[in-house]
Amino acid sequence: MNHKIEVEKFHTDSSKKGIKKWVAETEPPVSFFVQISDNILDPENHDLLEIGRQGKDSRRLIIVDKNVYGLYGEKIENYFKTSGINYKIFPVVSSEEKKDLETLLLILGAMEEFKLERSGEPVLAVGGGVLLDVVGIAATLYRRGVPYIRIPTTLLALVDASVGVKTGINHFGRRNRLGSYYGPIGAYLDRSFLRTLARKEISNGCGEILKMAVVKDSRLFELLEKHGARMIDDKFQNGQEPTEVIERSIQGMVEELAPNLWEKDMKRLVNFGHSFSAVVEMRALPELSHGEAVALDVLYSCILSANRGLMKSNDMERVGKTMKLLELPTFHPLFGDINTLEEALADTVRHRDGAQELPIPLSIGRAIFLNDFTKVELKKASDIMKEKFST
Amino acid sequence: MNHKIEVEKFHTDSSKKGIKKWVAETEPPVSFFVQISDNILDPENHDLLEIGRQGKDSRRLIIVDKNVYGLYGEKIENYFKTSGINYKIFPVVSSEEKKDLETLLLILGAMEEFKLERSGEPVLAVGGGVLLDVVGIAATLYRRGVPYIRIPTTLLALVDASVGVKTGINHFGRRNRLGSYYGPIGAYLDRSFLRTLARKEISNGCGEILKMAVVKDSRLFELLEKHGARMIDDKFQNGQEPTEVIERSIQGMVEELAPNLWEKDMKRLVNFGHSFSAVVEMRALPELSHGEAVALDVLYSCILSANRGLMKSNDMERVGKTMKLLELPTFHPLFGDINTLEEALADTVRHRDGAQELPIPLSIGRAIFLNDFTKVELKKASDIMKEKFST
Repeated sequence: MNHKIEVEKFHTDSSKKGIKKWVAETEPPVSFFVQISDNILDPENHDLLEIGRQGKDSRRLIIVDKNVYGLYGEKIENYFKTSGINYKIFPVVSSEEKKDLETLLLILGAMEEFKLERSGEPVLAVGGGVLLDVVGIAATLYRRGVPYIRIPTTLLALVDASVGVKTGINHFGRRNRLGSYYGPIGAYLDRSFLRTLARKEISNGCGEILKMAVVKDSRLFELLEKHGARMIDDKFQNGQEPTEVIERSIQGMVEELAPNLWEKDMKRLVNFGHSFSAVVEMRALPELSHGEAVALDVLYSCILSANRGLMKSNDMERVGKTMKLLELPTFHPLFGDINTLEEALADTVRHRDGAQELPIPLSIGRAIFLNDFTKVELKKASDIMKEKFST
Repeated sequence: MNHKIEVEKFHTDSSKKGIKKWVAETEPPVSFFVQISDNILDPENHDLLEIGRQGKDSRRLIIVDKNVYGLYGEKIENYFKTSGINYKIFPVVSSEEKKDLETLLLILGAMEEFKLERSGEPVLAVGGGVLLDVVGIAATLYRRGVPYIRIPTTLLALVDASVGVKTGINHFGRRNRLGSYYGPIGAYLDRSFLRTLARKEISNGCGEILKMAVVKDSRLFELLEKHGARMIDDKFQNGQEPTEVIERSIQGMVEELAPNLWEKDMKRLVNFGHSFSAVVEMRALPELSHGEAVALDVLYSCILSANRGLMKSNDMERVGKTMKLLELPTFHPLFGDINTLEEALADTVRHRDGAQELPIPLSIGRAIFLNDFTKVELKKASDIMKEKFST
């Protein structure tokens, strides 16, 4: 790791004495991977065993979403029994409503009880985005940081929470109000988990894919437009399209996140769909899923754009139609409520260093950042959304 | 920020399909400063105003130790009133016993109530090491990280918590069990705060200075040996020695911490005095202060060394004598209890990736790392400590 220490001595007007100042600068290397790993719970697949301390004394703590445990508990037990590694499986109820301090403390308690080492025993997080985020914040805090690996089991987590270094819990009634930038060693993507997902959950994941498509990948949008309905029917299992959709989504995420992991630059294309949705999602819990809220924000942003004559109305309508194909909602009363929209934007502005920085599509696959949307425009887009897309 | 993304396609034995793997690598720049700033609450001194958003809309949240607020509240109020900046002062009871989740949540609540922005409004933390550590962890978590500035008001915090990027709270009965590596923008050191410290608190700070002296700075040790008693009498206010002592301590800390901020390397000289003391300190609360516990560990480690014929007995005795001059304890019953010492070392080993990595002085100012201390040696050193230094 490069580092330098500079010691300055300087004088100020008010002081004739030398003032001493030490400046330490460093650039710690950070890396993570995202890897396709089919049938990760097949004992023949050794991906989960290859990271961390090896040998007969090695141990692993596996934090699993409780539903996932119900479906895959035996396979997980069997995988680790076969491996000969000492392990402890800790099932946790995880949902947006339980993405809270209490669940975080429960996971920290499991780490303490396991007497988890500081390194060498990467924690395995198996579940949807909520579980991955909460295990991530626990891993940040325990002994000032322990390693962890993400194994997403939902489509949403596969294309979203699997990439990047963000962790979080909801607090003070706000989405991800507490969290950290603390990356996993890596993520393993196994699409076979999607077989047991509810249809609505597949749809939910398509919300984040749609976001990526509209903001930066027109080919991805066309894939959703043409094959989305079929892919939902067979839960992304068959044919080449699901592979291409998932790989393009990951590619887009990695491209956008890697240069800006700590979000120093608040002009983030991946913020698309996340400018108004956070407050709406928290208020509508548990009615709207994350992907649904994001998709609503995508459509609303397209309307804001079309109203300014930026995006063609035709493209905006294609977005709405594709959402219907993907079984995503195209309207929610909170997007018809100007007070909620204004409050959501105000919090977003506080989060983006005082600027709106709204990613606004110019066409499908291309976007810019705008900062000057007025209440009048917010209201007009809201009215149009209600009028055109509420049925 | 440098970054690269590699996309690999590879095959495994068990799979004829191409497996896709994305690897993102980056080196985010991190820096912090430590600066001497005399009379920081004098309205003529603008150091506290120079970082963060400027102008009449600018705001600052100031988290202050409650005792410090009692002593300096008016000066702080006056400083910010004079500056014309909008501010909110939030006094917090801080002590080792209150270095807990409850205090962390209280500070997070103050940030939420203040509607703190994500950047541009650095939080000012004014107090001892506990307060700085708890504000640090709050700053890590709020909105995934907000900037903060450390203003230490105790000798211990001045030479220790002011440098580096560690934050933490006690949890599960363990010292700093939860925390993060999350540096402040910087720290401002104002020795004039020490005037109002209790004599015992000055002594407490000398514990950490002694650690640095024994492990890497023989000149610093001589300064403590010759001038320590007098410096305690006048609370580090007069003459050149206190300046030299503080600057040498800071210099040593910066040199040791800057190349290893994230503690990837567990051979850390600054761990000296922290191998056995954490468990002892927590058990003896509030009887032993942090600096006292560290000093006891320093002496105990010197005895471990002398017993192996590494450090000369004479040097070991000089350390004990200097501790007495500095009004530090040279024995505590928990250092006479082999079970406590063994348990403390076991937890330290878990924290240091399975190895003892004990910094052991060869002479005053020079140390190595050893990994093979046995229970018999721990017991013998404990007996000698009791015999030689308990009166």
